[in-house]
Amino acid sequence: MTGRDEGADLYPIDPSPVVILVRPQLAENIGSVARAMGNGGLFHLRLVSPRDGWPQDRAFRTASGAVRILEAASLHETVADAVADLHRVFATCPRPRHIVKPLLTARGAAAELRAIGARGLRMGLLFGPERAGLDNDDIAHADSLIRYPLNPGFMSLNLAQAVMVMAYEWWMAGEAVPSRVLQTHKTRVATKSELENFLAHLIAECDASGFLRNAPKRPGMVRNIRHFFQRGEVTEQELRTLHGIVTELAHGHGLRARDSGIETG
Amino acid sequence: MTGRDEGADLYPIDPSPVVILVRPQLAENIGSVARAMGNGGLFHLRLVSPRDGWPQDRAFRTASGAVRILEAASLHETVADAVADLHRVFATCPRPRHIVKPLLTARGAAAELRAIGARGLRMGLLFGPERAGLDNDDIAHADSLIRYPLNPGFMSLNLAQAVMVMAYEWWMAGEAVPSRVLQTHKTRVATKSELENFLAHLIAECDASGFLRNAPKRPGMVRNIRHFFQRGEVTEQELRTLHGIVTELAHGHGLRARDSGIETG
Repeated sequence: MTGRDEGADLYPIDPSPVVILVRPQLAENIGSVARAMGNGGLFHLRLVSPRDGWPQDRAFRTASGAVRILEAASLHETVADAVADLHRVFATCPRPRHIVKPLLTARGAAAELRAIGARGLRMGLLFGPERAGLDNDDIAHADSLIRYPLNPGFMSLNLAQAVMVMAYEWWMAGEAVPSRVLQTHKTRVATKSELENFLAHLIAECDASGFLRNAPKRPGMVRNIRHFFQRGEVTEQELRTLHGIVTELAHGHGLRARDSGIETG
Repeated sequence: MTGRDEGADLYPIDPSPVVILVRPQLAENIGSVARAMGNGGLFHLRLVSPRDGWPQDRAFRTASGAVRILEAASLHETVADAVADLHRVFATCPRPRHIVKPLLTARGAAAELRAIGARGLRMGLLFGPERAGLDNDDIAHADSLIRYPLNPGFMSLNLAQAVMVMAYEWWMAGEAVPSRVLQTHKTRVATKSELENFLAHLIAECDASGFLRNAPKRPGMVRNIRHFFQRGEVTEQELRTLHGIVTELAHGHGLRARDSGIETG
């Protein structure tokens, strides 16, 4: 099932999800990922802190013609930066976690991604480093988790093959009718950076109020708060309301209500 | 989407199709094929005239623990010999051919293979050499052709990734996996009355703080708050955290933090 190198025909077929490789170790794998992306009609690649730096000749050598994908790839220092402009983020996660998020198969995720893309939203797929996979802080940036149904007796999946399965399902889902949409009237889905602004606001006020005073528990509690607000799509107007609630609860008490000037829309 | 090396658990899960690599060129690819087979629950590997002979250390190095598959692989001089004991043979074929045979997608082929296996028949999958693919004489040994729906602008598919897609579809065809579930560990989804309790708490504090002071807008704002917290499933533990946040934001300010006794989970 091989074929001639046809990399010259590679171009973005939008809408399509961004592939985000988090701390990838081997440059060869980055090249193989680009090739798999091309096979499945994906084009947008973002690299978060690749171990050996970027760009790397070895990646271009294993891309088998998918060089345009590598040339267009962007480099990021953090997952937060890599997802900032996206509306929906999915994280591949081979092992069970104590995290409350929707868990999808690759096929289910592909169908949801098609539905999300059809609404003009930007979406991303997080893939972890070769050996360890994504850690809990990485996963906290995702709305949903993806786990592939595969042989539980042998789950050691190569990074490029993990991308291949998802890219293949993405392509296969191209003719499917969206089975699930969120209706949003007169507002738009918030970007991840808008959500981050709200989370920073909320956590600052939680700190100020003493809610997060238990230092050993604080990181886990912050992560749980983050998970909750990542659960589903949040609209930009809802974020404004949430900002207003947090500000008024923390400082309002009816006293400052008259001159607070909060936009409650 | 990586995972620990669990090659020790690899064993044949029958019925499963034999993977037949016809004149493979790179030993590394043979190892990567074995790994992909393990991921999808395939075990039986046959090699027809591998270019560099067999066995090869390089194959064992790229197999990432799938060594049992390589150790059990058999060597054949011709395709005819490799398929001699099989009942049904499928050939992967990326390009259109002037051949009159059933042509299936990977998904369609996986469903047929499951049905064939259930009847106790032995089946095989032919994959051609990396560069040229199967020739017409090879394909003459097959009953049906398989072509993957993939980006026609970039069909250069790595041999191991071609096997990965087929192995993945084979595994998927044998599982009835729900495509979307909510993962909840160590906690449970909140009931609607628990959610109502929280909403009543939140709205009471929003009233007290002055956030809902605009009487004409109040019903719509309350409805929007309700919509937001109804968006996805909320767990019972998350509700406890949210209760805590609202209480502390409204009354905490660090002053009462020490004796508030909030359950923060």
